[in-house]
Amino acid sequence: MADNSMSLQLRTLVKSSGELELSLAQVPIPEPADDEIVVRVEASPINPSDLGLLIGPADLSTLKVSGEGTGAVVTGQIPSQAMRMLGARLDQSMPVGNEGAGTVVAAGASPQAQALLGKTVAILGGAMYAQHRCVKAADALPLPPGATAADGASCFVNPLTALGMVETMRREGHTALVHTAAASNLGQMLNRICLKDGVELVNIVRSPEQVKLLKDQGARHVVDSSSPSFVEDLTAALVETGATLAFDAIGGGKLAGQILACMEAAANKKATEYSRYGSSVHKQVYIYGGLDTRPTELNRAFGMAWGLGGWLLTPFLMKIGPQAAQALRQRVADELKTTFASHYTAEISLAEALKPEVIAAYNRRATGEKYLINPNK
Amino acid sequence: MADNSMSLQLRTLVKSSGELELSLAQVPIPEPADDEIVVRVEASPINPSDLGLLIGPADLSTLKVSGEGTGAVVTGQIPSQAMRMLGARLDQSMPVGNEGAGTVVAAGASPQAQALLGKTVAILGGAMYAQHRCVKAADALPLPPGATAADGASCFVNPLTALGMVETMRREGHTALVHTAAASNLGQMLNRICLKDGVELVNIVRSPEQVKLLKDQGARHVVDSSSPSFVEDLTAALVETGATLAFDAIGGGKLAGQILACMEAAANKKATEYSRYGSSVHKQVYIYGGLDTRPTELNRAFGMAWGLGGWLLTPFLMKIGPQAAQALRQRVADELKTTFASHYTAEISLAEALKPEVIAAYNRRATGEKYLINPNK
Repeated sequence: MADNSMSLQLRTLVKSSGELELSLAQVPIPEPADDEIVVRVEASPINPSDLGLLIGPADLSTLKVSGEGTGAVVTGQIPSQAMRMLGARLDQSMPVGNEGAGTVVAAGASPQAQALLGKTVAILGGAMYAQHRCVKAADALPLPPGATAADGASCFVNPLTALGMVETMRREGHTALVHTAAASNLGQMLNRICLKDGVELVNIVRSPEQVKLLKDQGARHVVDSSSPSFVEDLTAALVETGATLAFDAIGGGKLAGQILACMEAAANKKATEYSRYGSSVHKQVYIYGGLDTRPTELNRAFGMAWGLGGWLLTPFLMKIGPQAAQALRQRVADELKTTFASHYTAEISLAEALKPEVIAAYNRRATGEKYLINPNK
Repeated sequence: MADNSMSLQLRTLVKSSGELELSLAQVPIPEPADDEIVVRVEASPINPSDLGLLIGPADLSTLKVSGEGTGAVVTGQIPSQAMRMLGARLDQSMPVGNEGAGTVVAAGASPQAQALLGKTVAILGGAMYAQHRCVKAADALPLPPGATAADGASCFVNPLTALGMVETMRREGHTALVHTAAASNLGQMLNRICLKDGVELVNIVRSPEQVKLLKDQGARHVVDSSSPSFVEDLTAALVETGATLAFDAIGGGKLAGQILACMEAAANKKATEYSRYGSSVHKQVYIYGGLDTRPTELNRAFGMAWGLGGWLLTPFLMKIGPQAAQALRQRVADELKTTFASHYTAEISLAEALKPEVIAAYNRRATGEKYLINPNK
């Protein structure tokens, strides 16, 4: 960088006029307070949860670029019907990037901060698509020896989400799980957790290739929603596993309702007498993503003992409390290069993240694809 | 009756062949055990929850009658796609009628049973579309002096459902309610409870006439889903009341999702900063009926802090436990002729309940219409 006191930070801005603007802001490198550290960010993943803030409902076919390199500004149109959901963020230039990892390049006077100087740490704190990020030393997770920033970049969102699903299952009295879009990075991670913990997991995927991918990773129950026998296959897997809780990344269309209906069919196969309201077994689906943005359609052919709802990591961690959350974090650190290993499609710079063809690629959210931003590349 | 030891009982039967059959069975008048009583049933309402068992998914345009009077047998066709939900009741002749009231005409030897002889009592026990019903004395609710069987016929399902909604609101941390199909018997009852208890209630109805009906009964917030300003009206009522819990009798179509979206819009009007996942206010809709049998359609424009689920009286009463349930029952008895008064469109006999034109009338489930069977008429 030309000016050693300045640092680049990716910004997203939705204007009242209905325009999305992405750019790189020049901001001063922060000075750490006594209990703070400054991290040079070297790896930050683009998660689906980041794309909501970064790109939102903008129409990618309208993207235009002015300027170039780190001075490029990308603009695109937001459909007017989507604007009313964005009221609270209008005309505010916002930093992006939930999590990431890098090297501690400055530290405040406190012993805890000083102890981290030079170390590679992971952070969950937002504003990670930036060359530098200042956080409290207590919020940094030091990576185990030998782990790179790329190894630790996805330490929080996917690992804690996957662990949160298993934890939710236990806390809400279920004994097995269903997961959709199960060939995703997160899905493969959940499969590894369930295999390790002896939890039965029904993986729902969308192609024979994805069935093979998960079977090759030891998954016992994999059903293909593109198969004509999907409903029968899913019901059979639910009878076998007794799963009555599903986490759904798809959201739109009929899938969530099909899962509930198959759970009901599985429960009724074990029922001995007719209940006009359906089985008394509680069936639950949590939607935690929206890969399919169409409306969710429920035919309600699953009795009255059911629930559907949103599920989000941060409220879940707040609900279980700091001690339980810390136990989950520690497990991630302990199993960083095994259970919680992530794989990336490509590593891109901040400037590359503003190129329309690259935006189109990372915004596809293709199963198993994940991009890593290295702001200091 | 010709034979004084026999009694008529309405039966519903779904045959494996795909045929619904309604008839009146001749059954012996039961002999009460020591702790039991025999009630001559004089009033039993046809609730939507009874129609599911009685008529189910049969196509009313195919109804045929053979025989006549109490010997009539009505048959109708069930669409084949509906048959797979009925597996557990196939080829079993089932009695019907959740609740009702009548005179105790026989009693077992126990003092508790003997004390009820000659009294008018209400019962929740199934098989009430019958001239006689034998139950445990402990399960009968003696009506207050001056109350007729018709006064007490609907003592349980609607009153406990309405009270259960308010109780659910309190137990799940909400402070105000939304109710759909709010001009129904149940809706009018809920309005009286909320007025009495000082709970803010947003009534959603489907016509200007229904707005007037509820306003005339003192309702403060009534919104008409047939109005072009429905979404704005509902959002304004939600801002005013702070209601984040709805009970929905409609089930199908977009209404449940609209309620969640309006709750989210109301929450965001109070929000001070943008959250990419929507407001953190938990929004809940319970579907307790299915007046609209189409699929439920959710556009998910309501963030991640939301839930949708089935709600049913019996599991709710089991969850709150016998002591809390008894407190609700006592309140119903205490306010039987005021808060919990029901009004009926017509009183019909068992034989009339088998006439196709009468079936068509009570199966319409028109708002505010309710039929009463008097098996001893």
